[in-house]
Amino acid sequence: MKIIIIGASGTIGKVVTEELSKRHEIIKASRNKGDVQVDIQSPKSIESMYKHVGKFDAVVSTTGEGYFGPLKTALDKDFRKGVDSKLMGQVNLVLIGQHYIDAKGSFTLTSGILAEDPVVLGSNLSMVNGAINSFVIGASIELENNVRINSVSPGVVEDSPGYFPYFPGHIPVMMDNVVAAYVRSVEGAITGKIIKVF
Amino acid sequence: MKIIIIGASGTIGKVVTEELSKRHEIIKASRNKGDVQVDIQSPKSIESMYKHVGKFDAVVSTTGEGYFGPLKTALDKDFRKGVDSKLMGQVNLVLIGQHYIDAKGSFTLTSGILAEDPVVLGSNLSMVNGAINSFVIGASIELENNVRINSVSPGVVEDSPGYFPYFPGHIPVMMDNVVAAYVRSVEGAITGKIIKVF
Repeated sequence: MKIIIIGASGTIGKVVTEELSKRHEIIKASRNKGDVQVDIQSPKSIESMYKHVGKFDAVVSTTGEGYFGPLKTALDKDFRKGVDSKLMGQVNLVLIGQHYIDAKGSFTLTSGILAEDPVVLGSNLSMVNGAINSFVIGASIELENNVRINSVSPGVVEDSPGYFPYFPGHIPVMMDNVVAAYVRSVEGAITGKIIKVF
Repeated sequence: MKIIIIGASGTIGKVVTEELSKRHEIIKASRNKGDVQVDIQSPKSIESMYKHVGKFDAVVSTTGEGYFGPLKTALDKDFRKGVDSKLMGQVNLVLIGQHYIDAKGSFTLTSGILAEDPVVLGSNLSMVNGAINSFVIGASIELENNVRINSVSPGVVEDSPGYFPYFPGHIPVMMDNVVAAYVRSVEGAITGKIIKVF
């Protein structure tokens, strides 16, 4: 398969890239490095990326940011960070990519444990992760040509110790298990699923 | 209690208003009618509403729109309808309202069945409803002064026969049960819950 990985240089993205590249042709996409540059906050940039890449079978997104901070001081503009980046950035990869992806292709997006298991400072990412999960459920029944879509929802990952203090009592999840979730979505046949890794 | 109901003139809002007004002082808020006008897409308008109302104990939101249409032709701007109205409109009622609401008050937002049980044309509302549910989960652990927050997630309501063709095989839910869910959130003691009515 020819797979576009967006966020290929991130903590999860680089390990997913390493694993999938054993069996597939990988196009690494990142904001500043990789085989192709893309700003997921710009629908135009996403369209350019797809046009540049040509035919492909799968999109794996391990990218997107949000506001991680107190609810008490949060403003509309703080919440728009997650809306514009992790949420609509990933959604636009699908809205636009559906017109370029090959039949039987797949989209794999990234949400996260905060959708259902909250931590202090995490309300924007809770919202965004819940949105991604439900978008996948909704989009899965409308994508044509047997194109599939799933989300991977990881807990705090063992490779990100900087986040541990913000996830008290959370058992960090093994990166191998996170990578396996992306493999299951890309190489398996499921659609409309939230693959939880926690 | 003094309760602000936003969307008080809508299908659900008017019945919720009728029930809660038996026991509480209701401030009806709508875009164009009611006791106070508010455009939930404008944080400034929301702030004005709260300042105008003064002290209050509860906010019930039964409002917000989204894009109901094909995934295949959906663009960023279509999805922003749900983001700006039903999602960020309701979220901003909380982000701003937390600074005005009385101790032990409550916010009750509205999501919907599409968060988990999709229909064709509903991907934007699936996304928005999932976002609202997870926002409630995230915000519930940070609101101060014992302020609570819940969402009511109704199925297609018996009073909205116009929607029935878009929900094939869905058993319309009784309006009495929907109203009871809002009562449970406002007059009960739960927080961080998604009250499903389907």
